[in-house]
Amino acid sequence: MARIKLGMVGGGKDAFIGAVHRYAARLDDRYELVAGALSSTPEKSLESGRVLGLADDRIYPDFEAMAEAEAARTDGIEAVAIVTPNHMHAPAAKAFLSRGVHVICDKPLTATLQEAQSLVAVAEASGALFVLTHNYTGYPLMRHAKAMVAAGSLGDIRIVQVEYAQDWLTEASDAENKQAEWRTDPARSGVGGSTGDIGTHAYNLACFVSGLTLDSLAADLQSFVSGRRVDDNGHVLLRFKGGARGMLWCSQVAPGNENRLTLRIYGDKGGLSWSQENPNVMEYTLFGKPTQILTRNGASGAADGVRIPGGHPEGYLEGFANIYVAAADAIEAARTSAKSDAIYPTVQDGLAGVVFVDACVRSSAKDAAWVSV
Amino acid sequence: MARIKLGMVGGGKDAFIGAVHRYAARLDDRYELVAGALSSTPEKSLESGRVLGLADDRIYPDFEAMAEAEAARTDGIEAVAIVTPNHMHAPAAKAFLSRGVHVICDKPLTATLQEAQSLVAVAEASGALFVLTHNYTGYPLMRHAKAMVAAGSLGDIRIVQVEYAQDWLTEASDAENKQAEWRTDPARSGVGGSTGDIGTHAYNLACFVSGLTLDSLAADLQSFVSGRRVDDNGHVLLRFKGGARGMLWCSQVAPGNENRLTLRIYGDKGGLSWSQENPNVMEYTLFGKPTQILTRNGASGAADGVRIPGGHPEGYLEGFANIYVAAADAIEAARTSAKSDAIYPTVQDGLAGVVFVDACVRSSAKDAAWVSV
Amino acid sequence: MARIKLGMVGGGKDAFIGAVHRYAARLDDRYELVAGALSSTPEKSLESGRVLGLADDRIYPDFEAMAEAEAARTDGIEAVAIVTPNHMHAPAAKAFLSRGVHVICDKPLTATLQEAQSLVAVAEASGALFVLTHNYTGYPLMRHAKAMVAAGSLGDIRIVQVEYAQDWLTEASDAENKQAEWRTDPARSGVGGSTGDIGTHAYNLACFVSGLTLDSLAADLQSFVSGRRVDDNGHVLLRFKGGARGMLWCSQVAPGNENRLTLRIYGDKGGLSWSQENPNVMEYTLFGKPTQILTRNGASGAADGVRIPGGHPEGYLEGFANIYVAAADAIEAARTSAKSDAIYPTVQDGLAGVVFVDACVRSSAKDAAWVSV
Amino acid sequence: MARIKLGMVGGGKDAFIGAVHRYAARLDDRYELVAGALSSTPEKSLESGRVLGLADDRIYPDFEAMAEAEAARTDGIEAVAIVTPNHMHAPAAKAFLSRGVHVICDKPLTATLQEAQSLVAVAEASGALFVLTHNYTGYPLMRHAKAMVAAGSLGDIRIVQVEYAQDWLTEASDAENKQAEWRTDPARSGVGGSTGDIGTHAYNLACFVSGLTLDSLAADLQSFVSGRRVDDNGHVLLRFKGGARGMLWCSQVAPGNENRLTLRIYGDKGGLSWSQENPNVMEYTLFGKPTQILTRNGASGAADGVRIPGGHPEGYLEGFANIYVAAADAIEAARTSAKSDAIYPTVQDGLAGVVFVDACVRSSAKDAAWVSV
Repeated sequence: MARIKLGMVGGGKDAFIGAVHRYAARLDDRYELVAGALSSTPEKSLESGRVLGLADDRIYPDFEAMAEAEAARTDGIEAVAIVTPNHMHAPAAKAFLSRGVHVICDKPLTATLQEAQSLVAVAEASGALFVLTHNYTGYPLMRHAKAMVAAGSLGDIRIVQVEYAQDWLTEASDAENKQAEWRTDPARSGVGGSTGDIGTHAYNLACFVSGLTLDSLAADLQSFVSGRRVDDNGHVLLRFKGGARGMLWCSQVAPGNENRLTLRIYGDKGGLSWSQENPNVMEYTLFGKPTQILTRNGASGAADGVRIPGGHPEGYLEGFANIYVAAADAIEAARTSAKSDAIYPTVQDGLAGVVFVDACVRSSAKDAAWVSV
Repeated sequence: MARIKLGMVGGGKDAFIGAVHRYAARLDDRYELVAGALSSTPEKSLESGRVLGLADDRIYPDFEAMAEAEAARTDGIEAVAIVTPNHMHAPAAKAFLSRGVHVICDKPLTATLQEAQSLVAVAEASGALFVLTHNYTGYPLMRHAKAMVAAGSLGDIRIVQVEYAQDWLTEASDAENKQAEWRTDPARSGVGGSTGDIGTHAYNLACFVSGLTLDSLAADLQSFVSGRRVDDNGHVLLRFKGGARGMLWCSQVAPGNENRLTLRIYGDKGGLSWSQENPNVMEYTLFGKPTQILTRNGASGAADGVRIPGGHPEGYLEGFANIYVAAADAIEAARTSAKSDAIYPTVQDGLAGVVFVDACVRSSAKDAAWVSV
Repeated sequence: MARIKLGMVGGGKDAFIGAVHRYAARLDDRYELVAGALSSTPEKSLESGRVLGLADDRIYPDFEAMAEAEAARTDGIEAVAIVTPNHMHAPAAKAFLSRGVHVICDKPLTATLQEAQSLVAVAEASGALFVLTHNYTGYPLMRHAKAMVAAGSLGDIRIVQVEYAQDWLTEASDAENKQAEWRTDPARSGVGGSTGDIGTHAYNLACFVSGLTLDSLAADLQSFVSGRRVDDNGHVLLRFKGGARGMLWCSQVAPGNENRLTLRIYGDKGGLSWSQENPNVMEYTLFGKPTQILTRNGASGAADGVRIPGGHPEGYLEGFANIYVAAADAIEAARTSAKSDAIYPTVQDGLAGVVFVDACVRSSAKDAAWVSV
Repeated sequence: MARIKLGMVGGGKDAFIGAVHRYAARLDDRYELVAGALSSTPEKSLESGRVLGLADDRIYPDFEAMAEAEAARTDGIEAVAIVTPNHMHAPAAKAFLSRGVHVICDKPLTATLQEAQSLVAVAEASGALFVLTHNYTGYPLMRHAKAMVAAGSLGDIRIVQVEYAQDWLTEASDAENKQAEWRTDPARSGVGGSTGDIGTHAYNLACFVSGLTLDSLAADLQSFVSGRRVDDNGHVLLRFKGGARGMLWCSQVAPGNENRLTLRIYGDKGGLSWSQENPNVMEYTLFGKPTQILTRNGASGAADGVRIPGGHPEGYLEGFANIYVAAADAIEAARTSAKSDAIYPTVQDGLAGVVFVDACVRSSAKDAAWVSV
């Protein structure tokens, strides 16, 4: 099967997530990066593209030029990875979707709810696929956890505790750091700061594993660093349809936490606990029995998406790559209009994430009043 | 210095916390248990007292008889430990306080706010001391954490995450288990279930270490087990005076958690994290530096209340005993009206705990509206 | 049942282990400390005894005087705790054993093999009990592990990995520290340094849990700190009768290790792993199944010697006290010549420990040749 | 810079390590796999090659044919990955080295010491590079540890404790499992079983990080599973030049251990501890200071070989790929005879590993006598 010809929008020099997407696309040899509009200026785009070995005629000054030119080529790209700041997701994605190019887009879906709704409409009208890289759902143990919940291993879910804590924005260095600079600018990041950047991950993962749908939330958001224009910490009460309750905490000002996304789910039969910083183990307790340490590819069986034996740790890039694998499965099936059972975060998941951020911001503005989602 | 003559109300056969108080009183050889009204019937009280080696004439059928008789003896008790179900704390404590006998009382202070206020009045009017066994403040590393916060090691506190998770009430076995039986009966336990039983511990510890005072809270309480008359799970948003925010989660229905009281505090300079199930270590991060593992009596110095070298674990009983040590220091000082700088949870701390439970219940009844405390 | 009248030899001011023995004797209220020869001079002994509340006429200048006087009293001590430096164990123990006073003695049994053999003879000839405080066998999970091995949960034992690592002797401060001073003096400590002080603990625990008997060993001992007269690090190959093999590492110069005694045992059906610094959990793996986290008093059942529920940590003092409980059971049984099934480390276990040290030293002197034990 | 044209010998269907090499070669986009002799029969080789997308004319029936044909092509391979069972390493490597093709070879270097010496001679006579995939040296924290030791952060090294424990060969299923089948066959695996398969990794890593050279060893090897023809467990005493001592334990029959390679090194100033199953953290203690948790790309600085920020775990494949990156750096430098400071395990490291295995086997045959290496 021929490798999928991939383009990339964003991800030039100094970008963090663009390189991650390239590792993820490359790991399983299902994609070939052939085109890009990698930076905000034509000069930087050209420079970045050459570093990646792209042909000069497929390095574009902007995504519009790229979408038009690639769509016109017989050997044009089949899919595009969009890895820009959030406010560019919607316009870029629309340019490709409307030309039938599949989109693999970083999260959150968009900077605003309005953009998200508009993008959903375009995505659903187009014949192209839309894959959102909520990469934490690609971790094998998170897929295993989802399967366990679905199989009733925890019983009826009562409680969902999810948190995503970082510390890199503890001090007011936003302007000094390229990552901080756009992520704390509401015009590019969106109205949510930590809620949009990492809260959406936590929310998506909690729903993915638990299988639950949120009913309403009450959020108390803060900007602890003086002068910061978006939230850097958020405490959210969660009420799920069907009666389960939970809490979500996201913070980028919690010293000692590098990237601590932790999910705990409790039902009337059992509970589980997992933390992203050591993603190869998960604790599972059947009520009344000793806690078990489940490993990614160990005695409890191989979780979906493993590449190597238990005890040989897989990490963030491998989990991320599992989203690319699912996207490749779906794209290859789409070539022949075959059915695909590939599971990946969709544009609807992306909309749900933006709805979540929007609801958090609205609730917080009303003194943490309950807001339905 | 002569050992303190101690009486005990409650704590007979099958009781859990009475035995704990006796271990705690005994460990450092500051007390001598000489009298008791240990059970709810005279017969059981006599039987329990004899097992403990009490003289028959100092085994009483009830606390009233004991208070009266002991107060009349020249060798009567100097202090009494009250370890009954919650609804008995206030009447028993008053009987002794009003006779000048120092009281060491289990938590929560009382079953209702009204009782708490009334007991505070009696305690403050009496010349006797009142010590509440919020034992987790007796852990050396919690005292060390409090000192670190006070010394500015974390900077200005922004975030307090505290949780206390258990699983023993996951199933509807309340009637079968003596501990569950009274702890889930609002008449004896108070209006709060998990909030009163363990939420007060979490709240007390968070305030003890952080030095913060709560301004208001918003609570969403649940009784997940069908038919249960008190909450068995609670999610609480916290707003502290001065701007710090936090969350408190208490649960007795979270499978896999035996007694997981965890406290994390983050300021603008650093953060710390501690969990009760392995209380001899605490993680501390000065922002921008590697996380340090502080031990109870290790390279970072001996925390207050240690007995043995680092690496030799001390546990729950030792932490509990540290409250008894502080009480003994205060009681001995009181003999000569000397000043004592002994630090222990007071009747005011107890009142704060009942105010907290009351506020949680009221907030939850109003759909998690903010309630000032 | 009347409390056991206890005397103490050693354990005065600045002593470490004497205080531990007193906590251990006190915790469960089975003993009453009434006499002592606590220090090396009459003056210090008197001072130390008064601090402990002993009557002046039962504070003795030396153990000989104490043994003679207490044996002559109708209310004399029934048992004595010997907590001196190692070279005093044998003479002190003999003085009491020969007068029918039960002995509870710290480890290692003696400073030399000759003393050990001589003491065994006296102990066995006397009608008195001899209890050696290899306290780590008092940890509930170590008793549980022993029971699991005996029940076949691990299958036939193949491998025993045991290590005991500390760091307090990393630098050459032996003379500055009372503990280091005698523990590194061969005249008082014995020929083994780390092997005697902590290697014997590791060896005893490994045999206790595995149920195995050592056949031979090959030891490579070092004194890394210049001028040190005893070993401060030892690597030992173990061959057990029946074919199991193992390694023992003891070190007092391994920075970062406070008191890390770790035991791992593997059989043809399963394995277990436990570490003393967090003694309330143990990992158990049945081959082909997920690893389980067993807790001291949790879902896998209450291990022998627990006092409080799972999740409420018990530590070093509680484990130590379990040896005192067993001793009390045996002593009380001895009052009426009743049979006792109390399990505690015996004088034979102590001899085995000294044989181990002696064999290590001899093997190391012969370039780690195999030595039978 | 053009990607390096890579061939592969071995690594067909059902192989474990071949796929790992391909992931590693692909991750950083420095290689292009264009040729292969992937299986032991021409038919399987063709089938495996087609699955990997190789052109039919570059799928070879055996390594000899491949070496000859590729050397003759103007677009022939520049490097070959050899991922066969151990006994084929030497003949395959020689075929390519002698034709100037760089070799990237799995470990251990060869099945026998004689083969190793012969291969070293060929490698050193050839102008081609030889890279051995002792992949654990590719973990960023192991490189950081090596740099710390070299910088004196631990002081003079005294003790090296290294162990590599697995459990997959606990039962006698060798014949059922393709991996077990050849790894327990001395004709293909070599005289060492666990010593060759994993002991060499442990030994290599210990030397890499500590910077020490082994002087002599004493080994006690076992084959616990009845009928097994190679060792499945080994206990080894280590004496390094300069006076440091250590122990190495390797086992494939230790239930509960998936792939637990653990390295601890102690010097007179500090110690460190790292375990492969969670490779993103390492504990470091400067004697007398609290233990620090160093992370792969965290507050202590980015270790060499990181791709993504701290808290985003990297695993086995990334560490393995770091060897491929170093090889690529060296190969690219070799194109122009430029100097390269790329660090990777060499053929001499491979020889040292085989010398180690050989010494273990000889020592064990002489009842664990010391053998110089």
